[in-house]
Amino acid sequence: MGERLVVIGGDAGGMGAASTARRLRADLDIVALEKGDHTSYAACGIPYLIGGEVERVDDLVARTPQEFRNHHRIDVRMRHEAMGIDLDRREVEVRDHEHDRTFRLGFDQLVLGTGSRPMRPELPGIDGPDIFGVQTLDDGSRLLQRVTERPVQRVVVVGGGYIGLEMAEAFVRRGAAVTVVDHSPEVMGTLDPDMGALVSRAMRRHGVEVRCGTGVTGFEPGVVHTDDGDLPADLVVLGMGVVPNSELAGEAGLKLGVRNAIVVDRRQHTSADGVWAAGDCVESYHLVSGHPVHIALGTVTNKQARVAGTNIGGGYATFPGVVGTAVSKICDTEVARTGLTEREATHAGFEFHVAKVDAKTRASYYPGAGDITVKMVAERRSGRLLGAQLVGQEGAAKRIDVVAVALHAGMNVEQMTALDLSYAPPYSPVWDPILVAARQATGLVAKGMA
Amino acid sequence: MGERLVVIGGDAGGMGAASTARRLRADLDIVALEKGDHTSYAACGIPYLIGGEVERVDDLVARTPQEFRNHHRIDVRMRHEAMGIDLDRREVEVRDHEHDRTFRLGFDQLVLGTGSRPMRPELPGIDGPDIFGVQTLDDGSRLLQRVTERPVQRVVVVGGGYIGLEMAEAFVRRGAAVTVVDHSPEVMGTLDPDMGALVSRAMRRHGVEVRCGTGVTGFEPGVVHTDDGDLPADLVVLGMGVVPNSELAGEAGLKLGVRNAIVVDRRQHTSADGVWAAGDCVESYHLVSGHPVHIALGTVTNKQARVAGTNIGGGYATFPGVVGTAVSKICDTEVARTGLTEREATHAGFEFHVAKVDAKTRASYYPGAGDITVKMVAERRSGRLLGAQLVGQEGAAKRIDVVAVALHAGMNVEQMTALDLSYAPPYSPVWDPILVAARQATGLVAKGMA
Repeated sequence: MGERLVVIGGDAGGMGAASTARRLRADLDIVALEKGDHTSYAACGIPYLIGGEVERVDDLVARTPQEFRNHHRIDVRMRHEAMGIDLDRREVEVRDHEHDRTFRLGFDQLVLGTGSRPMRPELPGIDGPDIFGVQTLDDGSRLLQRVTERPVQRVVVVGGGYIGLEMAEAFVRRGAAVTVVDHSPEVMGTLDPDMGALVSRAMRRHGVEVRCGTGVTGFEPGVVHTDDGDLPADLVVLGMGVVPNSELAGEAGLKLGVRNAIVVDRRQHTSADGVWAAGDCVESYHLVSGHPVHIALGTVTNKQARVAGTNIGGGYATFPGVVGTAVSKICDTEVARTGLTEREATHAGFEFHVAKVDAKTRASYYPGAGDITVKMVAERRSGRLLGAQLVGQEGAAKRIDVVAVALHAGMNVEQMTALDLSYAPPYSPVWDPILVAARQATGLVAKGMA
Repeated sequence: MGERLVVIGGDAGGMGAASTARRLRADLDIVALEKGDHTSYAACGIPYLIGGEVERVDDLVARTPQEFRNHHRIDVRMRHEAMGIDLDRREVEVRDHEHDRTFRLGFDQLVLGTGSRPMRPELPGIDGPDIFGVQTLDDGSRLLQRVTERPVQRVVVVGGGYIGLEMAEAFVRRGAAVTVVDHSPEVMGTLDPDMGALVSRAMRRHGVEVRCGTGVTGFEPGVVHTDDGDLPADLVVLGMGVVPNSELAGEAGLKLGVRNAIVVDRRQHTSADGVWAAGDCVESYHLVSGHPVHIALGTVTNKQARVAGTNIGGGYATFPGVVGTAVSKICDTEVARTGLTEREATHAGFEFHVAKVDAKTRASYYPGAGDITVKMVAERRSGRLLGAQLVGQEGAAKRIDVVAVALHAGMNVEQMTALDLSYAPPYSPVWDPILVAARQATGLVAKGMA
């Protein structure tokens, strides 16, 4: 028998690596283990499944197990859970939940694509039946079933990050009364509070009750206890972020890093020979701060998976790192960030200037011109771009990509003022809001020299 | 009396320089000459004025002469035309059309912001009363008056570039039957023909008759003669591009370059001491081809004006050049380009690979996901990004900015595959179409090495 690649985890991290490796090496014997019921799905689409924009669970499945078997010759084993990794014997201990048996599976190379899971704080009642985390498609599927069977009137979302707010919108669309509880001063804690405040305001405008600076102390059926009183709730959604599923890796002796994410090198190779990892379970390198970070985003997962698969397949590819780009649409408000916020820049040891401009998404005379606020952070003296945050209306969000590319390129804000960005009245004022922010930042840097 | 700055041209090039200089030097005596009736207007908005999205001519005026006088202490003289520049005596000969007199005005520094005018081929009947170029707001105003007084039923647009197609859409909105005539094989000659074909198709879908490969041979009242027969026309719009208004500069002995545009250095200084220029009348440096180019776009003008004004004001600023970014919305079709097309890359002496991908503007399961075609040109061997073209539906166009920034940064397509672009289902597939094109281009470059 030829060389065997075993993949743990049937979503984008594992299966992306597996299918890339397959393209490069027809001879590999590839076995993939997935403990749940779905492969390669779009978890980011779950809020739209709950909100009704997406009709069926299956719409979120990019490739079924059968497609992997037929088109990629990958032996996908569903409801098979990896219970342990024996690096010395190069075997995975596998639990087959379908047939209730356990066996050992040898590997030459191994990919860990074990993903992440929603954070569940140790609070009284946290394991109640109506408290839902939303990470896997199985989670989404269970939640959809729950809300279809018994309509929900009052929903409490704990945590006002991207997932929390997208789920809040989904339940508003379903006609529920939604309260978001967040211990931070504003929602969207991945932005600075002044930008988060714009999002809090937008959420309230859309009828969501937003309770910031409020801690959750426990749960009982029908009630969420907070340090600011009790909130009635038919259903609770946890949106407090995720933790990497790295226990298996840790127990096998693989090196873990920030937030216990698996440490990998630039080729997505772990600390163990022939063992690779990609996706939410791994650590990334932040190109601006120079720090390791744990960023659980589909777009990062897909890139890492392709890099891992290329290297497993005998090619050469590296994943240089992330700049921390994220975007979300919450009702008609677009929110985006990249690079470092003020808080993150301070934490990384930078001194900096902050530009902040209010502008329009289109030429002011063109119908539908909406508001956009751009905040830009630039290093003191060097003027190096450190990051930006945007909150605005239609057409605001994708502008963050300009800043993301400039971060990859290590530009300073003065260089950015010369960027030949596209302009036509339906898309932008003649000075794109990003350029206006860069101009203001350039002025602040120059003043700071004097 | 202190130092005097004279500005020729009351639109963005001249007035942008003047107001920037004013901010830096309160002592300057600034006189601006404008031969027409408007200052600082958005010429790019004229199609929307004709199409009805913008109500009044004044909506397109960013700043009136009175505002310049009151807020910037700039002595704006309307209907004053510069007839000649005497560099030795440092005087401008001025024709005051209002009072029908001529006088000479001394200057210490001079800014030329004379703009451009629509190309008018030497054809029989080209100066007929119903043949309109659309460049200045005075042009737009006259055209609006014409179509308001006597409704038009049949319009022929000569030239299928941005302006031509935007005007075609405007007349479709007014209920006219519109024919676009273009001598090229497809409309939108600033794209390669395969991408232009997508635009031709979209125009036809919107009810515009598109006649490509057709030359116009002359005009008579009510008729456009072409080498493919006569076309009835109540009104003709010229959309054949523009030529710089550089005669004044040329006669004064200033160095002219490509297409007779005024040659400037990186600080927007012309070949004559103390004489600056900005906007449609000047030459730009193309950062990808290394060639001088004439690009008449508001966004370039505004940047150049700011650079000229900063230097006149005693500061230091440079305009590094353009990458040739342009974007347009034609009905519901979004069109964008940056860098070099295949044709331009060949002309510049590059050998290259061409990637072309069909993708979606959003996650495929998200409502409203539209088509987008991305074409990307990458240099052979180095893989250096040379340019890209996009044609697609809502959300397509502004993606070109990612490519524009990558061009400024001199990235290669393999580096681009790692770009941390934003992703959320309403905005993008998990692999942004730009990344998919970069991946394909990377593969082609690698294959080309073998």
